Amino acid sequence: MEIDLSRPILARNDAIAAANRTRLAEAGVFGLDVLASPGAGKTTTILATISALRDRYRIAVVEGDIASRVDADKVKAHGIPAVQINTGGACHLEADMVSRAFDALPLADLDLIIIENVGNLVCPTEFDLGQSARVVIASVPEGDDKPLKYPGIFATSEAVLLNKIDAADFFEFDREAFTDSVRRLNGSAPILPMSAKTGEGVAEWVEWLAARVEAARTS
Amino acid sequence: MEIDLSRPILARNDAIAAANRTRLAEAGVFGLDVLASPGAGKTTTILATISALRDRYRIAVVEGDIASRVDADKVKAHGIPAVQINTGGACHLEADMVSRAFDALPLADLDLIIIENVGNLVCPTEFDLGQSARVVIASVPEGDDKPLKYPGIFATSEAVLLNKIDAADFFEFDREAFTDSVRRLNGSAPILPMSAKTGEGVAEWVEWLAARVEAARTS
Repeated sequence: MEIDLSRPILARNDAIAAANRTRLAEAGVFGLDVLASPGAGKTTTILATISALRDRYRIAVVEGDIASRVDADKVKAHGIPAVQINTGGACHLEADMVSRAFDALPLADLDLIIIENVGNLVCPTEFDLGQSARVVIASVPEGDDKPLKYPGIFATSEAVLLNKIDAADFFEFDREAFTDSVRRLNGSAPILPMSAKTGEGVAEWVEWLAARVEAARTS
Repeated sequence: MEIDLSRPILARNDAIAAANRTRLAEAGVFGLDVLASPGAGKTTTILATISALRDRYRIAVVEGDIASRVDADKVKAHGIPAVQINTGGACHLEADMVSRAFDALPLADLDLIIIENVGNLVCPTEFDLGQSARVVIASVPEGDDKPLKYPGIFATSEAVLLNKIDAADFFEFDREAFTDSVRRLNGSAPILPMSAKTGEGVAEWVEWLAARVEAARTS
């Protein structure tokens, strides 16, 4: 016999996530959950996004990490409010951690909260945070087979960012194979090639996000 | 009140891991657990290791993945026995999965079993598999701050491979900062820079491993 311990934990998480979602909707704030492997470029992408949208929207960031506060410090250095969550070993954020981060932010004065999840392509999949949308950042050096190996996260994301495309030649990345794998898992998510470092493709990603932020403000 | 569900799970895992360790010792087999982020180059490094050591040792591979069997197929294509474990969503291997993989391998006729864990820098940390040694592969494109953010895995590994050093200039990787971070967590593990793709540094890694395999055979 096996006892599934995950069900009560997920049910409790889902209840708190629903409350988070209501708070965002009532405040007219769009909450973006950003998922990726360690080192795929989450923080750099978030900084590029802030740079592109900070004149249009009031933005805050929630940083999730096992340990350290280097990411929150990087964001704060750009004059953007940031809350660091250290999960103390847990491999994903949970809704109650995000709820406490929301407590520390002026929700009524924000348009967009970007939540940087722990670097992990597995654990965050089943944990709803109450976000408005989830996106995954894949990166060229990881290889084109990642959707095959981590299907859950690609299947449940509303957009797939493909970062570090400036390194595509160096790593012999097969973009067609990557696209095919994503499409088999997810028929609707746009695949957005970009380089947060060079800026290539950032405009397309930012426009996708801005359209979603607008919809949240006016709904 | 919080109930820590992890303790009974880990105690059961540790008991099976101890049995795995005894099986390896009795058979004179060295069991290597390989940890890394998705896309850090685990499979490519394992293939380079096989290529360097296949004439000296009888090798088999246990491949852990959430889904797919692409890695086991790659290994088998080189004529090496490989067992694929699909964890069905779990973000790490557990000792009982490895025990069943051992059942499927001719332990008495092997010198080295390489266990490729699920691509993850968090979850595998606390799960002993009964391996003889654990190593972590970091890679240059992930950035030099990974030890800061995923300390557990760097603290508990007996060697730290730094892969994709052929991309160091492209990614402006600060090897000194990386080394300092590892050293603060782990005073003894050698840091082995290499490129599984170009072959640079592979000899040093392979010599470290061969010395350990020899010790297991003669002990």
